[in-house]
Amino acid sequence: MAGYQHILLAVDFSKDSELVGFRAVQIMEKYEARLTLLHVVANVYEEPVYDLMSSFPVDIEEKLIENANRSIESLAEKLGLPDAERIVEMGTPKTTIVQAAKQREVDLIVLGSHGVHGLGLLLGSTANAVLHAATCDVLAVRVGN
Amino acid sequence: MAGYQHILLAVDFSKDSELVGFRAVQIMEKYEARLTLLHVVANVYEEPVYDLMSSFPVDIEEKLIENANRSIESLAEKLGLPDAERIVEMGTPKTTIVQAAKQREVDLIVLGSHGVHGLGLLLGSTANAVLHAATCDVLAVRVGN
Repeated sequence: MAGYQHILLAVDFSKDSELVGFRAVQIMEKYEARLTLLHVVANVYEEPVYDLMSSFPVDIEEKLIENANRSIESLAEKLGLPDAERIVEMGTPKTTIVQAAKQREVDLIVLGSHGVHGLGLLLGSTANAVLHAATCDVLAVRVGN
Repeated sequence: MAGYQHILLAVDFSKDSELVGFRAVQIMEKYEARLTLLHVVANVYEEPVYDLMSSFPVDIEEKLIENANRSIESLAEKLGLPDAERIVEMGTPKTTIVQAAKQREVDLIVLGSHGVHGLGLLLGSTANAVLHAATCDVLAVRVGN
């Protein structure tokens, strides 16, 4: 059986992202695989709470993407991945993660999965949705228990 | 970050179980981890379709467990795991897998995950349920796409 060759690490920049990242790096090293970092900036205009903002002059999306680019650089540095490809995309997390994996012929998606406590029911849903829709293997790294 | 030390391979003896098994063995080897095989015999008396059978003289549960024991032996042999612990338990797959992992201090559950095609919506639900309830990492190996 072929080993993993291309790992997609999907991060949300929560406090557990480094933990999830270090697990992905560990597997990358064991398999001598490529690793791509992905952060999805949730499309604010799809969220009802932001409806009022659509008339603001400030380009919120641009700011969010700028911030995400800085955060992904910082995370790549902490994980010791200066050369890994970084992707920041706007969209729905589930769909964007699954599509990015398909487009790049990723064979393993690594992402964090929150437990059933606290915000878990809400936050855990991306991992579940990705697991359901992905066409490759998915490693859900348990965080926040 | 510590590597995986104890992997629980949950199999349903579908045609893809070997594929899922070989992936678990590969990770076991990379991490020099222990591997435990688990098959959950669904409790037939919980399934409405089997209600009529409860008055049958044959001990269906016993037969199902016997068959499962043979299947798990055969799978362990195919995977080259003569010494791995095998567990056959009756119960609800999700609950039994999650509990077995907790009891044995497993740090990674490996199981198959079916796509959204065909029976996927039904069969995929165990992987999703385990992902949601597990207190350790979960690797869902994509099969049947």
